[in-house]
Amino acid sequence: MTGVRALFFDVFGTLVDWRGSIAREVERLQLPVDGGAFADAWRGEYQPAMQRIREGGRGYVKLDTLHRENLDRILPRFGLDDMSEKDRAALNLVWHRLDAWPDVARGLRLLRVKFLLAPMSNGNISLMAEMARHNGFHWDAILGSEIARDYKPKPGVYLAGCAAFDLEPAQCMMVAAHSDDLASAAALGLRTAHIARPDEHGPGKGEAEPRVPVDVAASGLVDLAERIIA
Amino acid sequence: MTGVRALFFDVFGTLVDWRGSIAREVERLQLPVDGGAFADAWRGEYQPAMQRIREGGRGYVKLDTLHRENLDRILPRFGLDDMSEKDRAALNLVWHRLDAWPDVARGLRLLRVKFLLAPMSNGNISLMAEMARHNGFHWDAILGSEIARDYKPKPGVYLAGCAAFDLEPAQCMMVAAHSDDLASAAALGLRTAHIARPDEHGPGKGEAEPRVPVDVAASGLVDLAERIIA
Repeated sequence: MTGVRALFFDVFGTLVDWRGSIAREVERLQLPVDGGAFADAWRGEYQPAMQRIREGGRGYVKLDTLHRENLDRILPRFGLDDMSEKDRAALNLVWHRLDAWPDVARGLRLLRVKFLLAPMSNGNISLMAEMARHNGFHWDAILGSEIARDYKPKPGVYLAGCAAFDLEPAQCMMVAAHSDDLASAAALGLRTAHIARPDEHGPGKGEAEPRVPVDVAASGLVDLAERIIA
Repeated sequence: MTGVRALFFDVFGTLVDWRGSIAREVERLQLPVDGGAFADAWRGEYQPAMQRIREGGRGYVKLDTLHRENLDRILPRFGLDDMSEKDRAALNLVWHRLDAWPDVARGLRLLRVKFLLAPMSNGNISLMAEMARHNGFHWDAILGSEIARDYKPKPGVYLAGCAAFDLEPAQCMMVAAHSDDLASAAALGLRTAHIARPDEHGPGKGEAEPRVPVDVAASGLVDLAERIIA
């Protein structure tokens, strides 16, 4: 990994278990729905909501705003139309408190000894800052969509991150559990590391291995640290 | 300080001793000039360089770029016209490695237990990230000029910081050793804390106390923590 100075991390799915965390919140709130199905439905609106902004049909709004619109869209499907405004606002912030996969906090600590670390996520700054507090992450800066005012996989999001650190793409490595994210980064010249998250979308429903060529394929962040720190 | 959730920090002068750090670098490099005078001259070009951008006569460029232009401007005054391109580029990065005043690292640790912390500086993201590494600061996010693509004291810089954390101005406190910075923040509704840095511009040349009304006047960051953490 000669020359790599910074690691950029996809967050939802790669660092945190969004599906399990949301399901646990649904259970904690005693909502009369299946937590996993609710999480899947909410996340299912994620890509379509960003697409209008990527295409320029809508100006940039934070992911928090999209998450809230998506929540309002799915509640009727689960018979929860009567949820109050206050409860909707509170539930929407569950995305700020998603729990990390077990290897992540230690892996980031190991990796930070050698590399600058930043999230390269579609999540907004406040979401990333609170999630970092919740899980004990220490970022060097929060990069990603709110810096670029656009959403991955638009090239400007990755390139704005490189530019913020005064680095060339080849000096940056994108770390993600999603082959499409890595392919987009690689096309711009970033190095890539795939993290296996075979259970991201439920047991056995996730990328156990990359579907595109990558520089490193790792089973988790501690494994990544062992592979790329000489 | 009821309701304050985040602290925003001015950096040059408030957290780090730019003058002493640059003078030490000049000495380390054995440049045949007075270190304090060199630092003063370099810093003296700071406000005029930002002014064109604030007024819209020039698009946003990072402070690193302005620092470099300012360095090129002052070198002839010190008989250093023959400094190589490589040496100029290296010297310019001294701003990324400025040393903190002695109270800062501990004060930030104490304050971070209760508040979100971010620099609200005219320095760019890479400068802030490397300075944090150099001094052991843990920021929740790097806010300030590069997020707003403008320079303090333009209102949009402070307000972009509040918005990034999803906070109202009254939930944010600006911490600075400069009364003009605090007056600008207060006019927008932010709370304010003054930090005494009586030696910022050399012995006895700095603000020992605020020249404007502030919510708190402190002798340093540990003192600030003791005053605002119940």
